[in-house]
Amino acid sequence: MRDRIRPVDLAKSYLLLNHGPVTLVSTAFHGRRNVMAASWAMPLDFDPPKVLAVIDGSTFTRELIEASGEFALNVPFRRIADKVLAAGSVSGRDGDKFAHAGLTTFPAERIGAPLVCDCAAWLECRVIPEAHNQRRYDLFIAEVVAAWADPAVFSENRWHFPDAARKTIHYQAGGAFFETGRHVECGG
Amino acid sequence: MRDRIRPVDLAKSYLLLNHGPVTLVSTAFHGRRNVMAASWAMPLDFDPPKVLAVIDGSTFTRELIEASGEFALNVPFRRIADKVLAAGSVSGRDGDKFAHAGLTTFPAERIGAPLVCDCAAWLECRVIPEAHNQRRYDLFIAEVVAAWADPAVFSENRWHFPDAARKTIHYQAGGAFFETGRHVECGG
Repeated sequence: MRDRIRPVDLAKSYLLLNHGPVTLVSTAFHGRRNVMAASWAMPLDFDPPKVLAVIDGSTFTRELIEASGEFALNVPFRRIADKVLAAGSVSGRDGDKFAHAGLTTFPAERIGAPLVCDCAAWLECRVIPEAHNQRRYDLFIAEVVAAWADPAVFSENRWHFPDAARKTIHYQAGGAFFETGRHVECGG
Repeated sequence: MRDRIRPVDLAKSYLLLNHGPVTLVSTAFHGRRNVMAASWAMPLDFDPPKVLAVIDGSTFTRELIEASGEFALNVPFRRIADKVLAAGSVSGRDGDKFAHAGLTTFPAERIGAPLVCDCAAWLECRVIPEAHNQRRYDLFIAEVVAAWADPAVFSENRWHFPDAARKTIHYQAGGAFFETGRHVECGG
């Protein structure tokens, strides 16, 4: 995978989440790993880039994030929407959820969490410890330490989706998503 | 307007933001009011419903939110994308930005901030004071105290966009948005 993806300028990495796509949060710690779907993730700052993610206190992902201080936000392609849903509906405590959901991975560069194949973009994140936010709101603040995109869909700091299968998706509820739709350009 | 919109069950109000649309943040305090575009707003909790919004410390909107403890998140229709852009590119300190951007308003029910016409949905929000988050990250946490939607596009807790003009939009950068695209249903 690594030779087929391109680094994204860290100060532009917010563009990968700006339009509000669903994400897969991947984590690992001491040989255990997990993945969950998360709609509640977004940019928090440009440079150094930060993100926010809401990670429920009951999840195995939460355990691994608190143990490792790291996670990746993966921005999945439409063609794996069913796997995103599977990753959102079972617990990784019951076995390897990547295998269960049919998700394959490749290594990250700066963090221990694996990155998920068949995604448009990836943000490698290190948690900025904020105990009050984590405890009270299940809210994590993290710095983006590396960012990547598939050049077929994102290059020169802009999205250009070549086909429906490789669009990003936005979660509604009850197993339904929206595709990222048509480009709307406004007058200067 | 009020007779043409419908209340949304508070515990379901996260659905109005779940797919990551751009928002207009509207505010008012002691006869002064403002509006700004914000992509960095999302749900934080279901019940009682909470939202997150990133509001830059240099903005007039920030002044009015800190003074009033309130704001509304308005989810604009595609047909006012140019006005959303205008609301994101000038300061309300230089005159009434609603007038400048061509945005009309109607009164909220539970807060003093006005609601913006030509939107799909509205969330009336009261800030939960978190001084550290506000100061350090420009991050506001708020409780949703009332929520509304246009029944032409959202009813019975689901979106059903009748035409392109009344789709929601997702901000990219540089004056470009994406429309909310096609519905993707995954197998049960």
